[in-house]
Amino acid sequence: MLEKIQKMLTIRSNSIRELLAEALGMYILMVLGLSSVAQTVLGKGEFGQYLSINLGFGIGVTMGIHAAGGISGAHLNAAITLTHCMFGNLPWRKLPVYLLGQFLGSFLAAATIFGLYYDALHDYTNGNFTVTGPTATASIFSTYPSPYMSLTGGFFTEVSFIATVMLLLGILVIHDEKNNGALKGTHALVTGILVLGIGMGMGMNTGYAINPSRDLPPRIFTAIAGWGVDVFRAGNYWWWVPVVAPTLGSLAGGLIHKLLIDIHNQPVLERGNEKGQTVVESSTL
Amino acid sequence: MLEKIQKMLTIRSNSIRELLAEALGMYILMVLGLSSVAQTVLGKGEFGQYLSINLGFGIGVTMGIHAAGGISGAHLNAAITLTHCMFGNLPWRKLPVYLLGQFLGSFLAAATIFGLYYDALHDYTNGNFTVTGPTATASIFSTYPSPYMSLTGGFFTEVSFIATVMLLLGILVIHDEKNNGALKGTHALVTGILVLGIGMGMGMNTGYAINPSRDLPPRIFTAIAGWGVDVFRAGNYWWWVPVVAPTLGSLAGGLIHKLLIDIHNQPVLERGNEKGQTVVESSTL
Amino acid sequence: MLEKIQKMLTIRSNSIRELLAEALGMYILMVLGLSSVAQTVLGKGEFGQYLSINLGFGIGVTMGIHAAGGISGAHLNAAITLTHCMFGNLPWRKLPVYLLGQFLGSFLAAATIFGLYYDALHDYTNGNFTVTGPTATASIFSTYPSPYMSLTGGFFTEVSFIATVMLLLGILVIHDEKNNGALKGTHALVTGILVLGIGMGMGMNTGYAINPSRDLPPRIFTAIAGWGVDVFRAGNYWWWVPVVAPTLGSLAGGLIHKLLIDIHNQPVLERGNEKGQTVVESSTL
Amino acid sequence: MLEKIQKMLTIRSNSIRELLAEALGMYILMVLGLSSVAQTVLGKGEFGQYLSINLGFGIGVTMGIHAAGGISGAHLNAAITLTHCMFGNLPWRKLPVYLLGQFLGSFLAAATIFGLYYDALHDYTNGNFTVTGPTATASIFSTYPSPYMSLTGGFFTEVSFIATVMLLLGILVIHDEKNNGALKGTHALVTGILVLGIGMGMGMNTGYAINPSRDLPPRIFTAIAGWGVDVFRAGNYWWWVPVVAPTLGSLAGGLIHKLLIDIHNQPVLERGNEKGQTVVESSTL
Repeated sequence: MLEKIQKMLTIRSNSIRELLAEALGMYILMVLGLSSVAQTVLGKGEFGQYLSINLGFGIGVTMGIHAAGGISGAHLNAAITLTHCMFGNLPWRKLPVYLLGQFLGSFLAAATIFGLYYDALHDYTNGNFTVTGPTATASIFSTYPSPYMSLTGGFFTEVSFIATVMLLLGILVIHDEKNNGALKGTHALVTGILVLGIGMGMGMNTGYAINPSRDLPPRIFTAIAGWGVDVFRAGNYWWWVPVVAPTLGSLAGGLIHKLLIDIHNQPVLERGNEKGQTVVESSTL
Repeated sequence: MLEKIQKMLTIRSNSIRELLAEALGMYILMVLGLSSVAQTVLGKGEFGQYLSINLGFGIGVTMGIHAAGGISGAHLNAAITLTHCMFGNLPWRKLPVYLLGQFLGSFLAAATIFGLYYDALHDYTNGNFTVTGPTATASIFSTYPSPYMSLTGGFFTEVSFIATVMLLLGILVIHDEKNNGALKGTHALVTGILVLGIGMGMGMNTGYAINPSRDLPPRIFTAIAGWGVDVFRAGNYWWWVPVVAPTLGSLAGGLIHKLLIDIHNQPVLERGNEKGQTVVESSTL
Repeated sequence: MLEKIQKMLTIRSNSIRELLAEALGMYILMVLGLSSVAQTVLGKGEFGQYLSINLGFGIGVTMGIHAAGGISGAHLNAAITLTHCMFGNLPWRKLPVYLLGQFLGSFLAAATIFGLYYDALHDYTNGNFTVTGPTATASIFSTYPSPYMSLTGGFFTEVSFIATVMLLLGILVIHDEKNNGALKGTHALVTGILVLGIGMGMGMNTGYAINPSRDLPPRIFTAIAGWGVDVFRAGNYWWWVPVVAPTLGSLAGGLIHKLLIDIHNQPVLERGNEKGQTVVESSTL
Repeated sequence: MLEKIQKMLTIRSNSIRELLAEALGMYILMVLGLSSVAQTVLGKGEFGQYLSINLGFGIGVTMGIHAAGGISGAHLNAAITLTHCMFGNLPWRKLPVYLLGQFLGSFLAAATIFGLYYDALHDYTNGNFTVTGPTATASIFSTYPSPYMSLTGGFFTEVSFIATVMLLLGILVIHDEKNNGALKGTHALVTGILVLGIGMGMGMNTGYAINPSRDLPPRIFTAIAGWGVDVFRAGNYWWWVPVVAPTLGSLAGGLIHKLLIDIHNQPVLERGNEKGQTVVESSTL
């Protein structure tokens, strides 16, 4: 009986399995990441500091990669998926599958955090959900150019670009088996540490927008959930920057690695006793 | 002579060995965890911060898993043991064995921390052990709904449920050999990092009640040791929430993983050169 | 020519090699550990916090184990060496060799930190090196019962005992190959994490005295270097507590592990393809 | 077509590949490291603390080693390269190749951080880039003797020397396969943890000058970019200390390890199934 149900529920389509894997991985990444922002902001510094947010997203990335790595390659980032398509590692027809999975997971995570911290949000804002001002809370969900420093959006655009270049360079060298990659089975952990490092150096004002799938779906959610169209108008319609800049940064990072390191390294053929892997890992561009 | 004594003391009953393993693992987890709360609270912030508590429980979990993993599977959590029974991985007759071990270890750890910090508790409270108020100390031992924020118990109930879902999802993907699990021998470490992450995102007011075995026995201990029945009356008889919510969250997490990931993945048979393991690992539901 | 010199310098005596290994490992442990205390205290909180001290000793332990592990087993702790002798894993005649190495390394590390931070010590104390008072600096080198809290020495004695029990339990389960030990090659790292955890839970007022070799030689050094006999008189002649309490705690921890876990586990003979190891690892009691 | 371009771009010269690898590795190290200083200083403590800087450089080292380790051995430090030449592990003719690569990467990283944080630098300094004073920013790029404590340059010279001794000792024992080195594939991570530890104990005033390649090129950059010749005059022409002291410390560290540990250890021949490695790893002196 149980076996019958299980058989009925089993999905044989690779595309749907990849969609589910990206969705679950993204959900785990985002719940751990967003909740660390929520706890730091809403706890008024009693239950976290900026470092907690960096750690929260780092650990989220590690767990998300464990969740999706064996099925979809754990891109968990639209910019990375697009880069894979451009480098010919993922068929273009898979692009919408991956993106849909990522957006779904990210949107649901934003909704989860909203539900979870609903009372605390009301307590903190007196029910007035705003994008700017002293009790601004939109930045719990998405990135914004600094509302209280005199830094311009240009600053954040550049940070976003360079930070994504660093993300790609890091991911590629962590996984590079022809070079000095991390031990198999520790990739997820070391990638999380990479994201921790990026957050500590390029995260001013939670601005390390290195992932469209992390940024856009929660922004859409907040637009619906009470913050209104301000989430798109803020910073002179800045919302598209965390979508476009990481995409360009991802491509640039992939190219830099290929030109400076990868194409000069011959594949180590005799290590090939792990063949048969058909999964496109987020590592090999 | 020594050999004779050793032989005499050797226990052949698997059940008693599992009980002892769960007790010792739980004891290690709880001494490291509770002591980090005690040091942070009683040291008035000089010797720790909220992050220290998150790290303390994370490292406690890592060490507890090293202690019990090879014998009982290191559940160290009544909700996880119950989930294993429900999923058919552990015979129901083992349930009381595991729970007794966990509760014993947890209770003894609370007593240890009480004895250890007895002077410091007196120094901090002037001998008046309370559940609420400016020098409340009951939260060193068990979780409580926030006494000084206007958050309701409902908030903590939901956090407790979702946090346990995340705990289960994390544990299952870390150990998932058919997918992208962590390297063998690093499971304990990565699980500790998962618990660190959960604490930083869903731990407001030490409220990450994800484990009945962590919460109930120290509460009973504090009731006896001087805090009185207030530990059960606090928050409108809230004590049963950290028992029930994690149990439901654990089941939900197990189901989500099974439906979204696991049943669609065929077992990788050729990796089976490590068969013969009869231990029910806390990973495979 | 160079080869000749090298041959001349090569030591074939195992005892001297073990002494040198314990000395170098202890030196590395202590320089990293003590310097993190010095930087936190003398930097007046600008360059470190209590967590930095916990991390400093944790990383010191990791590096010390890498330095000495393959030669002497990296005890780096007189209490652990004595426990090994008592459990019959190390011949008693090696005891003075190990202790001499540890004390030498620890003493030289204290001297190094004193030399290094000499200017900063003068700057901080106006040249008046004291054990108590607002600019007390003796606690940079050794542990003392709290000078500014009303806690008694008894508190620290118990903490010292229990913390060493936890240290031993942790080390033994991390290395336990019959159970669920950490991956080979990560023992040093995970043991460092254990010490980090102990410091965050049982380190109030830098009081986690879990190692006579860490405490006594720097105390002797400070007595000579300007702090005078007060370093022994402080806390009602408290100096012997960090020598005796960890020794008892180490024995207790070894016994608890043996009685609750180890003697009921049969050795896994088929894993024995790494035989030939004659080194007494600090793990197997 | 694409293959043709790739073939055209492929570099067969080992020297150029090593130069590129050192450059990219150094660039990654420095962008992650310097950006964490920039974020901590310019964010006025809101987005980082001293620990963030220690973590930033630690993670930078880990990622840099992953980037260059398989090609050049990831020295990423002129003092280490020179030590390798002196110990006969690297031909002297490679010295300029490695140094050029390191300096190039380091200089470009300084330029990247300057470009990235240009707005924030102006915001913080009102456009007045200075080496000393309340809004000094030169220390974001290079190390300086403390401008606001009464410590002398001598203090920092000694710290620089000893810290580099610790760096070398740590690197050598982490990689020592004849002794108790870290697991292959985790060397990069554990070396990062070592650098974290050094920063927490010997980093007062960002003064852990353990690497000429980290210090000199950004100093030259700041001289050009608006801070002027003060960057060389500061601290009584102190700029050469972070060049010379680490070089001597590196040699000393290498010698200490050789004399106390290495020459007494016979190579473990039977482990040699990983031969064929012609790369000079930064580990084996």
